[in-house]
Amino acid sequence: MSNIRHALSARRADDFAQWYQEVITAADLAEESGVRGCMVIKPWGYGIWERIQRLMDDRIKATGHENCYFPIFIPLSNFEREAAHVEGFAKEMAVVTHHRLIADGKGGLIPDPEAKLEEPLVVRPTSETIIGDAMARWVQSWRDLPLLTNQWANVVRWEMRTRMFLRTSEFLWQEGHTAHEDAASAQEHTLRMLEVYRACAENDLALPVIAGEKPENERFPGAVETWSIEAMMQDGKALQAGTSHYLGTNFAKASGIQYQDREGSQQYCHTTSWGVSTRLIGGIIMVHGDDDGLRVPPAIAPHQVIILPMLRDKEGDDELLAYCEELRAAIAATSTLGEKTRVLLDKKPGKAAAKRWDWVRKGAPVILEIGGRDMENGTVSLLRRDRLWAENGKPDFATPTRDDAAASLPTMLEDIQKNLFDQAAKRRDDNITRGITDMAALADFYSSEKRYPGWVEVQWSKPTGAALDTVVEKLKSLKLTVRNVPIDSEPADGTCIFTGEPAVERIFVARAY
Amino acid sequence: MSNIRHALSARRADDFAQWYQEVITAADLAEESGVRGCMVIKPWGYGIWERIQRLMDDRIKATGHENCYFPIFIPLSNFEREAAHVEGFAKEMAVVTHHRLIADGKGGLIPDPEAKLEEPLVVRPTSETIIGDAMARWVQSWRDLPLLTNQWANVVRWEMRTRMFLRTSEFLWQEGHTAHEDAASAQEHTLRMLEVYRACAENDLALPVIAGEKPENERFPGAVETWSIEAMMQDGKALQAGTSHYLGTNFAKASGIQYQDREGSQQYCHTTSWGVSTRLIGGIIMVHGDDDGLRVPPAIAPHQVIILPMLRDKEGDDELLAYCEELRAAIAATSTLGEKTRVLLDKKPGKAAAKRWDWVRKGAPVILEIGGRDMENGTVSLLRRDRLWAENGKPDFATPTRDDAAASLPTMLEDIQKNLFDQAAKRRDDNITRGITDMAALADFYSSEKRYPGWVEVQWSKPTGAALDTVVEKLKSLKLTVRNVPIDSEPADGTCIFTGEPAVERIFVARAY
Ligand SMILES: [Zn+2]
Ligand SMILES: [Zn+2]
Repeated sequence: MSNIRHALSARRADDFAQWYQEVITAADLAEESGVRGCMVIKPWGYGIWERIQRLMDDRIKATGHENCYFPIFIPLSNFEREAAHVEGFAKEMAVVTHHRLIADGKGGLIPDPEAKLEEPLVVRPTSETIIGDAMARWVQSWRDLPLLTNQWANVVRWEMRTRMFLRTSEFLWQEGHTAHEDAASAQEHTLRMLEVYRACAENDLALPVIAGEKPENERFPGAVETWSIEAMMQDGKALQAGTSHYLGTNFAKASGIQYQDREGSQQYCHTTSWGVSTRLIGGIIMVHGDDDGLRVPPAIAPHQVIILPMLRDKEGDDELLAYCEELRAAIAATSTLGEKTRVLLDKKPGKAAAKRWDWVRKGAPVILEIGGRDMENGTVSLLRRDRLWAENGKPDFATPTRDDAAASLPTMLEDIQKNLFDQAAKRRDDNITRGITDMAALADFYSSEKRYPGWVEVQWSKPTGAALDTVVEKLKSLKLTVRNVPIDSEPADGTCIFTGEPAVERIFVARAY
Repeated sequence: MSNIRHALSARRADDFAQWYQEVITAADLAEESGVRGCMVIKPWGYGIWERIQRLMDDRIKATGHENCYFPIFIPLSNFEREAAHVEGFAKEMAVVTHHRLIADGKGGLIPDPEAKLEEPLVVRPTSETIIGDAMARWVQSWRDLPLLTNQWANVVRWEMRTRMFLRTSEFLWQEGHTAHEDAASAQEHTLRMLEVYRACAENDLALPVIAGEKPENERFPGAVETWSIEAMMQDGKALQAGTSHYLGTNFAKASGIQYQDREGSQQYCHTTSWGVSTRLIGGIIMVHGDDDGLRVPPAIAPHQVIILPMLRDKEGDDELLAYCEELRAAIAATSTLGEKTRVLLDKKPGKAAAKRWDWVRKGAPVILEIGGRDMENGTVSLLRRDRLWAENGKPDFATPTRDDAAASLPTMLEDIQKNLFDQAAKRRDDNITRGITDMAALADFYSSEKRYPGWVEVQWSKPTGAALDTVVEKLKSLKLTVRNVPIDSEPADGTCIFTGEPAVERIFVARAY
């Protein structure tokens, strides 16, 4: 199929990083803002985020959580409190020190020295401490538990090296925070939210993921357990796509979240927190994109079907538009994946072929091109984004009747959703290697000719502390990381690849974003 | 009806400000966060905001806008550029000057002097300049116009005196920003969005508003025209509930938003911006609240119907819960105001009577209390929040059969929505005074015994510049402000109350938030 003229200039197989950037531009998802490390999320990118938000929010609410909103500013003293009990305290954050600008007398503006804050405020990098303060006010008795909250918000972490969607100084996310009576119920909830993430990733985003527990060195600072969902990108690297933390009583003690138990004595709550972010969009690009741009799974596509009338700026256009509008209304009246089918009749000025390629690059699941001849025949020219090219190297148009097209679209969209998942799951499964039992073989595997070696599942003895540090260093020298221990993995039956001791579990090793 | 034992301790008629605060606490809408000027929006308050967002967003999208997301940080230089062309430049804002915290060596943290930003960043107070920069990149030709964008975001304005929902340092809002070919289309769009606000306020929030143009002194800095919707609170004061600005080419020139017109020459765009915020919730409280707490219009109530089983922690509870669950499912299957009816079966621990009063204070539109006797009779005890008290001073329960209750709720909720609007519209109309033609009479009117004098519509000559300043000062001495010139007001036929010159239009004068 070398005669295909792909819609992008970069190829995944040649330069994955450059291809990633080109997809973002070509699909018009986001752009650099001019403000250090911050991006502008453009309508198609934000529309995808709105769809993710809607579906994830429904799932979060279905598990009993209510949304709240907490201040963007966190007093410095909250971090002092946190710094005291948390080892890996992250210090790179945006600090507000003044509340006024004044003229500098040279035509410019400066922070007013008279308006210096007594206590600097930090733009939230995450809200554990400020939500902990609220929980301490809200929780009195066991009757108030579990307390299940969530917030959708922007957060800021000052990043030295940024990459759109994957690592930006400001990003959008949801952060769930809950308080429970005891360890068991908090741990159960940590896993319940991990399962919510898995279900949303796999069913809504068509992202196959491995749900499992992170090793000690990858835990959120202050967490007792950190769990993640990990997705395999097309370059074989892992992307941590969501995390769920069991925090024990660490944060409850720092914030004073106490309750009177059923016997009347004071106890500290066990808390959890969990989050997913706009990083998911980076994962969608790197899992579903191809050399023609993005492919958006129908469940999260802002528009699932694009109708492109081939207007000619002359007589007959009105008739063609009427034909298209009837089709639009017929499609809009159908349901796909449990919601109204989202269809756009794109009447913007421009040539139909150019607009077709714009929508291909954006990854709209189905494009219906309609010209005068289609109208005469009572048909439409239908292009499925997941099966773009015919054997002859040309776009693989089908030409159903207009009625058949409207009637068959819901099933076709559901098929596209499934197809994208299946393709990604097969690629993921094909690129997981098992049975490597010593470090030399592992090093060999990752230095092989194979460009995208994927993940390796190894057996290990779950070392901790200094022994774990040694393992991490060894892996680092191969540019590798430990990902997670899958919930449903086979029991260990061999020796640890790192220590030679008897293995206790299986864990994934991979290059990672 | 003096034998009524109201659910709040403050009365609207005695101390409106204290009553307002008590409603916020009693309805569990929000609370002080401990961070200066920032509030925590609690589940019931945030749930109302989510409903407002959903309905307003649908209306904004229906008029052709797409949502984007722009950075929270705005470089200082953008404000220098703005300060140069805008007179009333607001300087109170949160300024980020450092990107790292370090230990101070005394157990605390300080902004790292090594990590001082070269150019300070301002936490957005509004996004005209940063969105203007993006528009300058996005707009090339007339074909790109109109460019219709919107963003939902948090913004920060450093406020010295704050009041929950009405004036907080951080608040949530939507800000629409659009670019057009010429003045006519931009002005038309400014009014279209004002109409969107009016329709959402009146139909969704049940807030009757006056849509009109603000006088020159009340314009957004840099705007050519500022329009507003103004709502009358129960204390007779005006609340500006939304604004829509026609910005001429002022911001386009500052940001360089140019396009090639149909004849091939470069032109500056005409831009608009418009916003509504969490301030709307303050308006809902002050318009719909009563001495028993909040009353939430059904269209924006997170739960429209609450089912309260009178559980006794003993035998029979399961049967009662099953009876309630059947009712819940029957109600959830109905539609109200074009959406699924939102019903909650409240199984939380606690006494039914205490829970009833919690929901009354929160303002849930309908409460269904169900005890053993109801179950035996096949009935429910139904309480409408907008008709809480019977003549005898007791809660006015009706006892329809369970089937009748489920079937009649959609109509009842629509009736409550209408009733809340009608009550507010009547109060508003009753408290608008016309025919005051001289300043002495105006002063007299506002110093009368009448506690809540409402608004006065006066005729004026639409003074500008210094003459307007004089009018504003005169009014200020009476604690009054000019609100807006209603779109649909009668033509003027008298003399200006301020200058004695022939009047050119009618304008509202009122005390205001
Ligand atoms: Zn939950
Ligand atoms: Zn519009």
